Amino acid sequence: MNQHNVAIVGATGMVGRTFINLLSERSFPVKTLRLFASQKSKGEILDFNGDQITVDVLTHNSFTDINFALFSAGADVSKTFAPAAVAAGATVIDNSSAFRMDEDVPLVVPEVNPRTLDTGSKLIANPNCSTIQMVMAVKPLHDLAVIKRIVVSTYQAVSGTGKDAVQELQQQSKSRLHNEAICAKIYPHQIAFNMLPHIDVFCEGGHTNEELKMVNETRKILEIPQLPVSATCVRVPVYTGHSLSLNLEFEKSISVEAARNALGNFPGVVVLDEPEQAVYPTPAELAGRDEVFVGRIRQDDSIKHGLNLWVVADNLRKGAALNAIQIAELLVR
Amino acid sequence: MNQHNVAIVGATGMVGRTFINLLSERSFPVKTLRLFASQKSKGEILDFNGDQITVDVLTHNSFTDINFALFSAGADVSKTFAPAAVAAGATVIDNSSAFRMDEDVPLVVPEVNPRTLDTGSKLIANPNCSTIQMVMAVKPLHDLAVIKRIVVSTYQAVSGTGKDAVQELQQQSKSRLHNEAICAKIYPHQIAFNMLPHIDVFCEGGHTNEELKMVNETRKILEIPQLPVSATCVRVPVYTGHSLSLNLEFEKSISVEAARNALGNFPGVVVLDEPEQAVYPTPAELAGRDEVFVGRIRQDDSIKHGLNLWVVADNLRKGAALNAIQIAELLVR
Repeated sequence: MNQHNVAIVGATGMVGRTFINLLSERSFPVKTLRLFASQKSKGEILDFNGDQITVDVLTHNSFTDINFALFSAGADVSKTFAPAAVAAGATVIDNSSAFRMDEDVPLVVPEVNPRTLDTGSKLIANPNCSTIQMVMAVKPLHDLAVIKRIVVSTYQAVSGTGKDAVQELQQQSKSRLHNEAICAKIYPHQIAFNMLPHIDVFCEGGHTNEELKMVNETRKILEIPQLPVSATCVRVPVYTGHSLSLNLEFEKSISVEAARNALGNFPGVVVLDEPEQAVYPTPAELAGRDEVFVGRIRQDDSIKHGLNLWVVADNLRKGAALNAIQIAELLVR
Repeated sequence: MNQHNVAIVGATGMVGRTFINLLSERSFPVKTLRLFASQKSKGEILDFNGDQITVDVLTHNSFTDINFALFSAGADVSKTFAPAAVAAGATVIDNSSAFRMDEDVPLVVPEVNPRTLDTGSKLIANPNCSTIQMVMAVKPLHDLAVIKRIVVSTYQAVSGTGKDAVQELQQQSKSRLHNEAICAKIYPHQIAFNMLPHIDVFCEGGHTNEELKMVNETRKILEIPQLPVSATCVRVPVYTGHSLSLNLEFEKSISVEAARNALGNFPGVVVLDEPEQAVYPTPAELAGRDEVFVGRIRQDDSIKHGLNLWVVADNLRKGAALNAIQIAELLVR
């Protein structure tokens, strides 16, 4: 098999480190791995398959001879450096929101819309974390009965914000347990033992940018430009693992049994749904797993052809790094 | 003003203690206060307005000369003892689910359906915690435009389960912060840094009993027997304060401005909705407050005449003890 020169941009972040782990776990055919980050991480040394790799500062000349550049350093870094990477001949898989809604850029979940890669675009966007796990659960049902409307409320982990947010949750939790004052830096309110209906910035109509991503990216991935989607995104005191409460309306009826079968047979989805035995997905117990887990599959009698689902996935893996590497795997095949 | 002999059944529980605090805070006209609990709390001494009151074990003879008996000791205790209290001449306000759906028993949120008290029933049911705060937010909008369908996902605090659950969240959080093994007794899974889509027992159709309560009690309180309601109830690692993500569909259009005004003018509701300044309700910051707080008021463009709301209330106060005492206040007026 051909070996590839791979670069990770944002290598010291939570998604960056997950990239490194997954390249190793999945035996991605890596010839050389180069790690890039911002000035403050320069010289940091990270392990990849026993090799000690020094983190470099990213420049416009970093991409010589790179075959795959995996970006996860925020939209600004992607906007500045992804075009340089493509110009140098690399295929860029970008985990930021920078290019996701660009018409020419495929927005890919490999199990859902792999054929959008057929254009041969050298710049590919990895979708928003919550959106990935939502479309993974919706697609097999959409194939059965055509999705008509989605109402989603999210329960999103702090690792989606980054390392500093994980530390803030830890620190605030300790403070609260010791009855000490709580200090909030990363989030505008205490996140420990609290719920914040606020992810990313607020936009027109009072929606957060995260909510708009879930609407727009879902439409693009499912190729239903006007699909009605209502999203409410909430940050919760969980380290890793996003959960979704999904209320779905279809054109045709789907029995719970048919839904369970369709979901269970879909690659990358696992049904955990024996409520009487308290079997359902929970984020803390499924962090570190690759699949999207679905439980609480119920008929929703409040509407014709309605279903409710509870969907959990590791936001750093399937919600970010794993999905990007699956895209790279499709491309090297 | 007439003074009343008041009994609290379940006095040592979280709602019971909140009853005691609220009777004092609100200067309810108490002549004597009697406190009852189970055998294991016998002899415990609780303070009421500087008086030290000894907790007694509940018997069928506990209600002699009692005017108001406030029950919060679970449905079994209510079923066993509430009829005895009524027979002894007391008015029972029952926080359990025992009688809520009985046709002859008013299910009351004072701001929403006070006239159901006009039957003179001596047995009155206090609704489910999440249901109370939901109907408080829905009623002023329903009065404007007629509610057509509700999709609700909840974020419910552990104090709704009781003292042991609060301790379990504390203990598990400490264990997790010290990388020690987590012990789950009250909940079937870890609750610290986790989300459990499981409140009360599972029933037919895969719904939890909590979800069915939200459907059935909402219909009864709003007097819309067939109102379509889809509920997903989730236990979250918050001590006190339930949050709801509400997706509402109405018969007629309501502008965000009109919704904000109607909510802001409704007694007991406070609008906290300046998202650009990060002003929205969060449970940890509003625990201990009496009002129902509404924010994130948005048009939902995924449907005709849709609105999204984020609703937070203290589940021990408006969700339980406060609502019950407000009912008693209506009756003594």
